[in-house]
Amino acid sequence: MPHEIPPRSGTAFLLSQGQTLTVTDILGEQVADLLAFNRHDIGEVISSGRTLDYASKIYLSTGDLLYSNRSQVMLEIIADDVGRHDFLLTPCSKDTFRIIYGDTDPHRGCFGNLAAALAPHGVTEDMIPVAFNCFMNVPVDAATGELRVDPPLSKAGESITFRAHMDLIIGLTACSALQSNNGSFKPIAYTIDD
Amino acid sequence: MPHEIPPRSGTAFLLSQGQTLTVTDILGEQVADLLAFNRHDIGEVISSGRTLDYASKIYLSTGDLLYSNRSQVMLEIIADDVGRHDFLLTPCSKDTFRIIYGDTDPHRGCFGNLAAALAPHGVTEDMIPVAFNCFMNVPVDAATGELRVDPPLSKAGESITFRAHMDLIIGLTACSALQSNNGSFKPIAYTIDD
Repeated sequence: MPHEIPPRSGTAFLLSQGQTLTVTDILGEQVADLLAFNRHDIGEVISSGRTLDYASKIYLSTGDLLYSNRSQVMLEIIADDVGRHDFLLTPCSKDTFRIIYGDTDPHRGCFGNLAAALAPHGVTEDMIPVAFNCFMNVPVDAATGELRVDPPLSKAGESITFRAHMDLIIGLTACSALQSNNGSFKPIAYTIDD
Repeated sequence: MPHEIPPRSGTAFLLSQGQTLTVTDILGEQVADLLAFNRHDIGEVISSGRTLDYASKIYLSTGDLLYSNRSQVMLEIIADDVGRHDFLLTPCSKDTFRIIYGDTDPHRGCFGNLAAALAPHGVTEDMIPVAFNCFMNVPVDAATGELRVDPPLSKAGESITFRAHMDLIIGLTACSALQSNNGSFKPIAYTIDD
């Protein structure tokens, strides 16, 4: 039975070693920011820098491993309908909306949603790193280094599946930034399987 | 009077708001990993994810701002002879050398050097994020997302200069990874000016 994350919100849940997590873009073109913490020691957290270094690429898909800051494998991508996700940018936040969009009364964004959902697990705001942004489409110009946030390539019903390599606390959102989601806010579904 | 960081080592020092830090590649083709923490609250730390998001590019140079995880400006690049630095990859570590190079008795790397140098300031290993890797040359293939670690573009005596926008603790290394430094380990110089 899939769980549904309402638009512009987030949640946190446990994912045990060996279980799989499938994140589904129900309506298409909707990003889901994903964080992972070691359930038994939350100082160990998903690391873009370690992962990209070991993978020697910025775009990860089926077969690729997501590492922690302590160089342990946290998650493995075992299926992926889309093939384009972002692992460069931090979750959108009040500050993102203030600095990039010029909002005067900004939404708390994925950052605020993740912080609220993860607080009961002992995670504080400063412990939130770069997220693995499922379905987020960030092309980079190889010559200039310029990046863009383009509409996701994900179509309705497409998904990405991860297997947990350790006992984890997962934070997951339906992303709150207009630009990341082609101008609208939609829900995200997820399922956990043994 | 410049300070010199010996090959494969690191140091930490204070940099006050308004002061400038110049990092010089004395012999050429040598990387220097740079970290910055808010001196008055070390939970605030340099953030690749925030910085790349606000800059909309992965290659930063003169005029660009380096942000913290709390979206405050920590450093501004005010001069840059080289124009190619990396802000995607974490400092090399025992695990890097084990996983990427297959070393059986690995050096502690920039990660270990930074951890040791920053420990007296209260910084722990888990607080070390992606560093701003001065002179590190990491081209990305725009189509596939593949990245390489190429020889630095920096020539002997070339430098990059930052102005501090807040009171900082800086961690700085002469990088320990063969591949990052075109196969040899060289010193790095730095100067602080008011």
